[in-house]
Amino acid sequence: MPTLSESQLAELGRRILAAAKVPESECDAVATHLADSNMVGHDSHGVMRLMQYVEFVEQGHVKPGSPIDTVVDTPTISVLDGNFNFGQVIAKRGLAVGMEKAKQLGTATVFVRNCNHIGRLGAYTEEAANAGFAAMMSVNAPGPGGVAPFGGMERRLGTNPISMAAPSPNGAFVLDMTTSATAEGKLRVAHQKGESIPEGLIIDGHGNPSTNPGDYYNKPYGSILPLGGSLMGHKGTGLSVMVDVFCGMLSGSGVCRTDLPRGANGVWLHLMQVDQITDLAEYNGWMNTYVESLKSTPKRPGFSEILMPGEIERRRRSEREQSGVPIPDETWRQLTELAERLGADISQVG
Amino acid sequence: MPTLSESQLAELGRRILAAAKVPESECDAVATHLADSNMVGHDSHGVMRLMQYVEFVEQGHVKPGSPIDTVVDTPTISVLDGNFNFGQVIAKRGLAVGMEKAKQLGTATVFVRNCNHIGRLGAYTEEAANAGFAAMMSVNAPGPGGVAPFGGMERRLGTNPISMAAPSPNGAFVLDMTTSATAEGKLRVAHQKGESIPEGLIIDGHGNPSTNPGDYYNKPYGSILPLGGSLMGHKGTGLSVMVDVFCGMLSGSGVCRTDLPRGANGVWLHLMQVDQITDLAEYNGWMNTYVESLKSTPKRPGFSEILMPGEIERRRRSEREQSGVPIPDETWRQLTELAERLGADISQVG
Repeated sequence: MPTLSESQLAELGRRILAAAKVPESECDAVATHLADSNMVGHDSHGVMRLMQYVEFVEQGHVKPGSPIDTVVDTPTISVLDGNFNFGQVIAKRGLAVGMEKAKQLGTATVFVRNCNHIGRLGAYTEEAANAGFAAMMSVNAPGPGGVAPFGGMERRLGTNPISMAAPSPNGAFVLDMTTSATAEGKLRVAHQKGESIPEGLIIDGHGNPSTNPGDYYNKPYGSILPLGGSLMGHKGTGLSVMVDVFCGMLSGSGVCRTDLPRGANGVWLHLMQVDQITDLAEYNGWMNTYVESLKSTPKRPGFSEILMPGEIERRRRSEREQSGVPIPDETWRQLTELAERLGADISQVG
Repeated sequence: MPTLSESQLAELGRRILAAAKVPESECDAVATHLADSNMVGHDSHGVMRLMQYVEFVEQGHVKPGSPIDTVVDTPTISVLDGNFNFGQVIAKRGLAVGMEKAKQLGTATVFVRNCNHIGRLGAYTEEAANAGFAAMMSVNAPGPGGVAPFGGMERRLGTNPISMAAPSPNGAFVLDMTTSATAEGKLRVAHQKGESIPEGLIIDGHGNPSTNPGDYYNKPYGSILPLGGSLMGHKGTGLSVMVDVFCGMLSGSGVCRTDLPRGANGVWLHLMQVDQITDLAEYNGWMNTYVESLKSTPKRPGFSEILMPGEIERRRRSEREQSGVPIPDETWRQLTELAERLGADISQVG
């Protein structure tokens, strides 16, 4: 099982994507995003995606080199049409455009349509927070999702994640969560390992609670429950629905579509520059008081600490900066096979 | 048990507040907000609050007639200082200022500090949606709350609600939810009736799950769990924390304060004018397709329909426009006693 550093992971991605005829700057945007996901421990969004991404390019779902068109452009709003270039390329552009605007007037709101999977939202909002912005971002899935609305027993919603981030003296707060009870990736892992999952995450195809992840993958297909499950799932459903409205309807990406590439995203991003809104020293003071207050909460049996949003990811990054990222043998085999097929030389990065 | 119409409820509120020496326009802002809460079925936020509000005025927590100062004023941002006038008066001003700005540049972001309890968030976001804006709004409690962070067993967070709304051809979508497992009002009702509550909403003072609402009110005090409870409570905690940052830190209201009136709020509001962002006919088309898709989801056992955010409230309003709002005898007794003490004539409105 090879262990790679962040720069090795990024170089690996750049070489494979370049061999798939992706323009150089786009290779870099995608590869650094994937490497970053590995660094914060989200391996499901890391370099293992390269196999899928190259497949998407070859099938024409992802169109490298496509221009990013500006549909709406006011001092505070941008609506971008990504023409199905890589999601990371488009979202990165959206973030840059938004930060530039928010530096002028204090806030900016960005929407993106015709966009592939943009990856881990927290990467964008964390970048914004580190640059002095409070940020909120969501993506919807204009195509079929895996989540049943509260009271329903068929898939109608995506996992529609929400990310919120803000600067803080001892490391940005970065919330990045699905509005569903769980992400599909976690079910897949449990299913592959033959493990059961806690009750409250999915229902089977008849609408009954299930602890067997196979009920999600086998007919009649089960569904992921909304955040809050059977007790409070009206809240998760409500959040998910509003994500569809902000990211799908406002961006022009839409909903309930079967004509889009698998994993297409509609994007909504809102940025607020902290020091144009309030006194930064006072803001930082509140943040410190707050972290201290939450951290000092007496713990429930079975818990040893209270975590701030994004703290686990920051901790994992720091560990992996020391020890590198272990790549499972099967993933490594697929990556080397892919590199070989494309004629990419990855001998120096492994 | 008297039954009152919306206009009677509002007139009742206006007369009582006027007798408590509240300026006329402020009486109207508060009274119409309370009557509206009754109309949509949220009686806990309705005219029964008049007893508490008059008490707050008499104790000096609410300062009627206080000016609303503008702290930050850019083309897209307003930060208002409410000087502890009524929350409804301040939030109404914030919404009006925000809508005026968003009509110009398409978006506006408003923050409020030094603000009393603003009432039901959905009232503001629904007004925005009916005027053509997609809206998001949150309030935090700068003072003590009742919610334990995930893994904790002491109260450190407020119920920190989130409201999101957007226009839709057959009635605006209006989500209005706490980021906690339940609102305190629901515990109070169950406690007064001697009823138990579902497991997963609160823990007792030792951090153990409890179905007895008395565990919340009696020492050692229990806590409300975050949205998602013991299984997914990291998500509710994360949302609540970010609400504290957006509404508390950015507005300048702060957090962890014991020097503020009970129920003080920090406010964040973001408005986006739909027709400056996307084509309205296309937007409406997506909304119709979407509602149809969700409504047609096969139902789980025990469920008869899928509800859109705000649909229950709209239904209750329509019922109560027909039948009026029943005021429980004890509430009516307190209201007439209060009116009498203040010398308000409410004989025509009962």
